[in-house]
Amino acid sequence: MSRVRTGPIVRQAVVTPVAVPDPPLLNAVGVHEPWALRAVIELRCEDGLIGLGETYGDAPHLALLRRAAATLPGLDVFDGADLQRRLAAAVGTANAPDRHGLTGATTPAKTLAKVTAPFEIACLDAQGHATGRSVADLLGGRHRDRIPFAAYLFYKWAAHPGGEDDEWGPALEPSELVDQARRMTERHGFASLKLKGGVRPPEEELEAVTELRRAFPDHPIRFDPNAAWTTATALRFADGAEGLLEYLEDPTPGLAGMAAVAEAAPMPLATNMCAVGFDDLPAAIDADAVGIVLCDPHYWGGLRATLQLAGICRTWGLGLSMHSNTHLGISLAAMVHTAAALPDLAYALDTHTPWQGGADVVLRSPRIEGGSVAVPDSPGLGVELDRDALERMHRDYLRCGLTERDDTSYMRRIDPDFEGTLPRW
Amino acid sequence: MSRVRTGPIVRQAVVTPVAVPDPPLLNAVGVHEPWALRAVIELRCEDGLIGLGETYGDAPHLALLRRAAATLPGLDVFDGADLQRRLAAAVGTANAPDRHGLTGATTPAKTLAKVTAPFEIACLDAQGHATGRSVADLLGGRHRDRIPFAAYLFYKWAAHPGGEDDEWGPALEPSELVDQARRMTERHGFASLKLKGGVRPPEEELEAVTELRRAFPDHPIRFDPNAAWTTATALRFADGAEGLLEYLEDPTPGLAGMAAVAEAAPMPLATNMCAVGFDDLPAAIDADAVGIVLCDPHYWGGLRATLQLAGICRTWGLGLSMHSNTHLGISLAAMVHTAAALPDLAYALDTHTPWQGGADVVLRSPRIEGGSVAVPDSPGLGVELDRDALERMHRDYLRCGLTERDDTSYMRRIDPDFEGTLPRW
Repeated sequence: MSRVRTGPIVRQAVVTPVAVPDPPLLNAVGVHEPWALRAVIELRCEDGLIGLGETYGDAPHLALLRRAAATLPGLDVFDGADLQRRLAAAVGTANAPDRHGLTGATTPAKTLAKVTAPFEIACLDAQGHATGRSVADLLGGRHRDRIPFAAYLFYKWAAHPGGEDDEWGPALEPSELVDQARRMTERHGFASLKLKGGVRPPEEELEAVTELRRAFPDHPIRFDPNAAWTTATALRFADGAEGLLEYLEDPTPGLAGMAAVAEAAPMPLATNMCAVGFDDLPAAIDADAVGIVLCDPHYWGGLRATLQLAGICRTWGLGLSMHSNTHLGISLAAMVHTAAALPDLAYALDTHTPWQGGADVVLRSPRIEGGSVAVPDSPGLGVELDRDALERMHRDYLRCGLTERDDTSYMRRIDPDFEGTLPRW
Repeated sequence: MSRVRTGPIVRQAVVTPVAVPDPPLLNAVGVHEPWALRAVIELRCEDGLIGLGETYGDAPHLALLRRAAATLPGLDVFDGADLQRRLAAAVGTANAPDRHGLTGATTPAKTLAKVTAPFEIACLDAQGHATGRSVADLLGGRHRDRIPFAAYLFYKWAAHPGGEDDEWGPALEPSELVDQARRMTERHGFASLKLKGGVRPPEEELEAVTELRRAFPDHPIRFDPNAAWTTATALRFADGAEGLLEYLEDPTPGLAGMAAVAEAAPMPLATNMCAVGFDDLPAAIDADAVGIVLCDPHYWGGLRATLQLAGICRTWGLGLSMHSNTHLGISLAAMVHTAAALPDLAYALDTHTPWQGGADVVLRSPRIEGGSVAVPDSPGLGVELDRDALERMHRDYLRCGLTERDDTSYMRRIDPDFEGTLPRW
């Protein structure tokens, strides 16, 4: 028999931070700054083949990405074990916190998982190009051809301070959120809605949910106040929201609080804050704290790790949905391939894509049409780098002056009394 | 960008039952008959490429394999989702029991998992041949180049009734087991031992373990009485075996009994009887019934499912080892690739290979040398069908007269008073 083929072999791993224009979206810890930061990973291989990945662009993460990237020349993109060894050695016990605090506590394990993800994704993309297969196929096959997404609704200002109104205008009142939902669903055909809360007092947000329910009687609605409430407030809200929600996401901080709310709430609770890594799952499951785990390949450690999480959710009878940060087309494609390879997909995925106004680092970005994205039918992730856009968005990164996501400090520059501590109500 | 490649496409799925000469190995439910039954799966694809799998050859399982095989023409071997759909439709809610009862209760889910495994393995083998990659690489990369195995020691008769003594001779006394262990470790270099128990009264088996420990002070020893004991007997044995065992496998039936023993035993408990499918895991973990789960791709649902199990064990801090039935070189290769792709491998794998006297359906069988098997470095599983041997062993299947593994009935033909009910002591 012939010998096993080797390669593609990585010649150079390039990390390029980019900045994406971002509207003033409000959340429990503040407001999005005018630029969101992402990092694009290119694994440039010996035969000219390139594997792409995308991740967060915050400075502490970027430093680790660069440290990791320097160790990758010589890597066979099929050798996931070698990738793990190299990344573990490069990252060590580093613990890079998320200053925004919206995706739970940071640990060395989660830091390594976050560094691993974009490189694993880029290896899978390269494997796909080398074999002519899609990433979904390499993960075990596609269970569906289109992936449903939810309209991600936000309280927001009309404009960044000192700037001009953006195309979406203000959304501080229930009627404005309903209008935002109408425009977003008309544009993309979304059949599910998600409202980010934790911004206005709970009774106002309950009114918003009620108005959305009335305006969209057939759309499942999820609601996420990002742990802005005490257990008592969360219980009161959950009681008032009976019959309105598909699920309630992170109403209150911590496992004990989540478990107390879960026990009495008439809807399932979801989380991307109290169970954000494999180490968190035994205690979360033991406490019956959550009914639905939000996966996100970017911090669960990549696409195979996300399938691992899905297997755990299936085994313990938990639901699985997918979390999103601001992202570009490479991440969207990675999310789509992962979702295609999941045996069970009961919920539409979250995405910030409609808020990016078409800005992207790839040519022919995957499009959300009829509420879903078609699984690309080109090899790998099925996206192609737009080098002009990458260069332009990297220059935006250099000139925007931001190096870390910090919604709270930005909010305080506008509202010095804003505290951003959770729970708030 | 180019379109995703498709194929290899299955033209025909062929299921060939074979019989393997088997010595009179004793266990808690009886004795191995002179022939062990296996089934070889060939996925013959359009371009002449063949994917191989191997599984049990018992009649009820064989009937399901054939029903499933008939639905596979047209399958793209990369489309694991389509494979799952076809197999689920073919198997339905069938529940094919194992008459021997040594690997836990049968359920429709486990029946489907057992039918799925050899076809999934054959698809991965075909994927490997199509891409020039090893199955370990396709599973995510190899974490090690050699896979350690344990010497699997058995109480046994010198010969099948009416037959001539086999090369191993009798093993009913501790000294004979020590002799068996010496010969087996000398031949293959094993650095771990496993003794199958549940055959002689527990005090005699404890003596055997003690003698093995004395003769092999540096070899970890595992012991498996296959649930032949009550909880009280198991606790007594565990107490007496303190310091002798790496782990104690299935000392007593059922989760409650295992949990009671686990709480007091000085060594970890392992199982391939009380947690044998994903549905069993939540209760087993909740009860703290086991410290080590024995995986086995053949009944956990294939190689990817085994990696899923490994992820669960890692998340909950459980150990993972690998169970073996009588098997040939295709299964050995599948076990080796799986073990290579496991991030954590703390225990040597079980194998019956030394008992098969070199009988195999593949050319150049993977060899156990220095206690381990090298991960093949040819594409796919790295084994090649020996068509002459397959034909010969299929004729043995047709003429041997056996259609189901039934250790108990065979024992009763020799010892009419044998009951084989568990627990016995």
